Amino acid sequence: MSQYTVTFFPNDVSVDVDEGATLAEAAQKADVFISNLCGGQGVCGRCRVQISKGKAGAEDHARALFTSDEIMKGYVLACQTEVHDNLEIVVPPESTVDDSQILTTAVGEEMVMGKANPIVRKIFLGLTPPSADDNVPDFERMSRVLTKEIGSRFLDTPLDCLQQLSDKLRENDWKITATVCRNRNNYRILKIDPLDTTDAQYGVAVDVGTTTVVAQLVDLISGRIMGVKGAHNNQASYGEDVISRMIFACGKGGLDPVHKAVIKNINQLIGQLCEEHNLSVEDINAMVGAGNTTMTHFLLGLTPCSIRLDPYVPTARVFPQIHAQEIGIHIHPRGILESVPAVASYVGGDIVAGVMASGIAEQEEVKVLIDIGTNGEIAIGNKDWLVCCSASAGPAFEGGGTRCGMRAMAGAIEKIEITGTDLTYETINHTKPKGICGSGLIATIHELAKNRIIGQDGKFDRNRKDDRLIIEDNIPHYILAHADETESGVDVVITETDVDNLIKSKGAVFAAIKSLLDYIGLGFEMIDTFYVAGGFGNYLDIPKSVAIGLLPDLPHEKFQFIGNSSLTGARMCLLSETAFETCANIASSMTNIELSTYIPFTDEYIAALFLPHTNEKLFPSVSY
Amino acid sequence: MSQYTVTFFPNDVSVDVDEGATLAEAAQKADVFISNLCGGQGVCGRCRVQISKGKAGAEDHARALFTSDEIMKGYVLACQTEVHDNLEIVVPPESTVDDSQILTTAVGEEMVMGKANPIVRKIFLGLTPPSADDNVPDFERMSRVLTKEIGSRFLDTPLDCLQQLSDKLRENDWKITATVCRNRNNYRILKIDPLDTTDAQYGVAVDVGTTTVVAQLVDLISGRIMGVKGAHNNQASYGEDVISRMIFACGKGGLDPVHKAVIKNINQLIGQLCEEHNLSVEDINAMVGAGNTTMTHFLLGLTPCSIRLDPYVPTARVFPQIHAQEIGIHIHPRGILESVPAVASYVGGDIVAGVMASGIAEQEEVKVLIDIGTNGEIAIGNKDWLVCCSASAGPAFEGGGTRCGMRAMAGAIEKIEITGTDLTYETINHTKPKGICGSGLIATIHELAKNRIIGQDGKFDRNRKDDRLIIEDNIPHYILAHADETESGVDVVITETDVDNLIKSKGAVFAAIKSLLDYIGLGFEMIDTFYVAGGFGNYLDIPKSVAIGLLPDLPHEKFQFIGNSSLTGARMCLLSETAFETCANIASSMTNIELSTYIPFTDEYIAALFLPHTNEKLFPSVSY
Repeated sequence: MSQYTVTFFPNDVSVDVDEGATLAEAAQKADVFISNLCGGQGVCGRCRVQISKGKAGAEDHARALFTSDEIMKGYVLACQTEVHDNLEIVVPPESTVDDSQILTTAVGEEMVMGKANPIVRKIFLGLTPPSADDNVPDFERMSRVLTKEIGSRFLDTPLDCLQQLSDKLRENDWKITATVCRNRNNYRILKIDPLDTTDAQYGVAVDVGTTTVVAQLVDLISGRIMGVKGAHNNQASYGEDVISRMIFACGKGGLDPVHKAVIKNINQLIGQLCEEHNLSVEDINAMVGAGNTTMTHFLLGLTPCSIRLDPYVPTARVFPQIHAQEIGIHIHPRGILESVPAVASYVGGDIVAGVMASGIAEQEEVKVLIDIGTNGEIAIGNKDWLVCCSASAGPAFEGGGTRCGMRAMAGAIEKIEITGTDLTYETINHTKPKGICGSGLIATIHELAKNRIIGQDGKFDRNRKDDRLIIEDNIPHYILAHADETESGVDVVITETDVDNLIKSKGAVFAAIKSLLDYIGLGFEMIDTFYVAGGFGNYLDIPKSVAIGLLPDLPHEKFQFIGNSSLTGARMCLLSETAFETCANIASSMTNIELSTYIPFTDEYIAALFLPHTNEKLFPSVSY
Repeated sequence: MSQYTVTFFPNDVSVDVDEGATLAEAAQKADVFISNLCGGQGVCGRCRVQISKGKAGAEDHARALFTSDEIMKGYVLACQTEVHDNLEIVVPPESTVDDSQILTTAVGEEMVMGKANPIVRKIFLGLTPPSADDNVPDFERMSRVLTKEIGSRFLDTPLDCLQQLSDKLRENDWKITATVCRNRNNYRILKIDPLDTTDAQYGVAVDVGTTTVVAQLVDLISGRIMGVKGAHNNQASYGEDVISRMIFACGKGGLDPVHKAVIKNINQLIGQLCEEHNLSVEDINAMVGAGNTTMTHFLLGLTPCSIRLDPYVPTARVFPQIHAQEIGIHIHPRGILESVPAVASYVGGDIVAGVMASGIAEQEEVKVLIDIGTNGEIAIGNKDWLVCCSASAGPAFEGGGTRCGMRAMAGAIEKIEITGTDLTYETINHTKPKGICGSGLIATIHELAKNRIIGQDGKFDRNRKDDRLIIEDNIPHYILAHADETESGVDVVITETDVDNLIKSKGAVFAAIKSLLDYIGLGFEMIDTFYVAGGFGNYLDIPKSVAIGLLPDLPHEKFQFIGNSSLTGARMCLLSETAFETCANIASSMTNIELSTYIPFTDEYIAALFLPHTNEKLFPSVSY
């Protein structure tokens, strides 16, 4: 089979691929990130690249996604274009991502656990040498001390530890350090080191997010966070959201590449963290991962296929403790990996970790945790009860499903003010606008409604005189940034369909919150604190989110951003057996309301498709 | 490095070895068995072979062990002779073994367990498919049924089982068979098969003996023994008894070859059994091994070195459940291996298995189990208490340490009668005599004493007129078979030193029994049953053994041969979790008396160095 060289710019990376490979496959091989929303089906148009040298294979199928000018300039879809020549490819800024906006911060970052009781513990054992009066076997000599230390008489021991025990004891004057971990109701020995090594013990907490993967290196002795690194999830090559990735993994693509993509992420992050701190990856004895249920399935290589099919059944909700090396994660060969358990198919370990980290399950007061992404996951409760649900918000808040939507990264319009016909905006990193991100969209909807450019039903005022308001084929759109101001040279706009999609998204989230409260018979006034977690949440403008009816009309001081609470929770599990146990209890005791079959939700949803809501009494502070 | 070809006869097997390899190493590479008592130190003279073609390397060191005629004929020690030429080697019959006398039979062989509750169980699960009302994850769906079946909520699950679960359930109409096993207080899933496979489940019970390795193939559904195979332990190349093998393994030889030698044995036996029954080795899901403490260390690759050094500490007494493949045993890759726990360094799992199998620990009556080899292991007790010890009997009963001693195999004199100067003998397989085995030696001592050829102190009557009694340099020996009758053409004799060694051996065993009974304050009359186990025991002549003072003077009907009770016990453990638990209880509750530091034993030993005993009241039925 012929091989061709493909060079990607601006990265200037070359890779040799077999004839017939797609440009997307070549990019992946070259470690060049190209966006992908649809999982390589050729329909989302996110993977557009420009062929600057060489002749491409067939790309007719994709013409509808390009202007004739772009086609002339050699634009193609990377996922649909085969390599039949040596090629030079330019990846335009809109088809790639930068890592600047990855949420690696979290509330409680500097927290040192009060009583550190990490999930892997090192215990120094200075044993009395055997004598005629005390000639119990080496293993009993060790375990009679060890079982007292750990307070359990069950101690699984790997054969290789036992094989080395006799020599290790005798060569080190009966002084050894045992690394042990709890595995449900058993303890197991992971390794035995010579002499006293209890001064050094490390772990990694990983938030395995759909969009980003973030790893923290944690000193398990002091509880200190030593470093944090984030990266875009490599799985984006197989689809931007979990549904696209499931379609890929459960179709001809198979699970393996999707599984391996995130393992590669994690190994890179751990490698970088260890290098920065002069550690070997073998110094890491434990990893705790938190992710949504599908991401945890991908992480562990579990079949996720039934998650997206009625009745939405995952393979598992509680995941076994494994050796990280079983899934190719490079830490100590006996290092363990725990995954935070999930509640159900669409309420995962990330939410459980967040509920645990925010302390909701420990207090009298009723508190809410919300994490808004493609799904809006909501948990409400206190120390006596917990309920949760997942509302399908659609991709709008993450920059999908809208004509000029984009993720929150450099060039995204994130703030906007409209006064009459005057409009000012701000972009992330203050670069030329490329599109508009979730927080920008919320601000836009609010500004449009406030200025009555749209009505409370989201329809544009077709009689309005405004240069920015354009009506083509009876479909109105509104120009946020004119072509001459933008990166790509085309207008950044919001269409009536975009507004409609956003109202549906915010309606779904609000209806979910309202349905959960109704289910337990409480009003909004009973909510003591409203925690907003996650990447999108961190950039949310609370007053504007309330004004459009996404969040309930509570005193603003009741809202608290808690950042990447999934990561915080994972770290707490790493540092405390008790925290991990709390997660297990939360996951098994939280009542999940399946909204797709919960009749009252439909009525709430329809009532919420209005700005801010059809029932204005719910939003006393808002007036358009 | 030059290579040379060594051909072994009568096997007619050739092998290429590097220059400088020993003939013993060449034989091992060629799978030709050559005896070895001293572990290759060049002192026991058991590995004599004849070089029939080619020139041997230096062998001066060994001349003292050969007659000048033998040296002329090219006799050398295989362990001391290096290869520096292409060679043809004749292995004489006395330097090899045949497998005909391996004890594969055991009492209770046809026993089918009443309630079979094997250590690995197959459980068929016909699950209800998920619905909107019942959308628990696949793993919970399976485990809620499974945990009920096994009566435990703790269920370790290997990642690969979980990875395949979703597809297996959906492809097989929610019908699967789980193979589970108990591991201390947890259960674990070993594998999940499609549909119902509960009609077939196999295991192997293995008696890992110092001299022989015996494996039984067991149908775990019916409890039936499907077949049995035995072989000489390949470790004999590294020494005939455990002490020589420990010296080899803890010296420059290393543990690995000794460990691998017995694994090879077991794999061959399992392979043969499976072939005969048209099974794949992967059909075997479990193995239970029983052996003495040192042999179990060799089996599992545990360092045995401190076992032979004061204060006689093994690495472990209770051994972890492992996957058989961890030590290279070829059964199902997830098949488990349990080792019967030991009591102490010199009372091993073989004795524990025997005590369990013989039911001693279940009844009111006081019973004794004895297994005589290089060590005589003795256990005494009932359902309320158990004591045991190990007496160093020396190699005499196994044919070592006496000039013409040999193992019980073809050509060994096993029976003997002397009337005046008339002598008749019988050999095993009725071939020409080659030497004398343990049971023959006991008979000889008895006959010599009965005819007053030796006194009760074991000294020959130097004044006796008897052609068979030869006195050279004041050391008498007695001819049992003249040179013209024997295989090798030299006399088969018993020397005064041989008699002395035998009296020491029988004295050690008797003194051990007596010391144990004194320790618990019981007389011989309290013994209800006296079980004699093991290879040597099976050929023991009870009246003669009593007459020389090896066994106590009890009514002969109280003695029962129970054959290979270690194998029986291992099989019972395979078929019953309860039996394995009973072994664990026996091993931890049995009191071990360390005779080397138990003062009363020394007096008993000295008192027993007489025929039958210095205290004739202990042997009322015996008169010389």
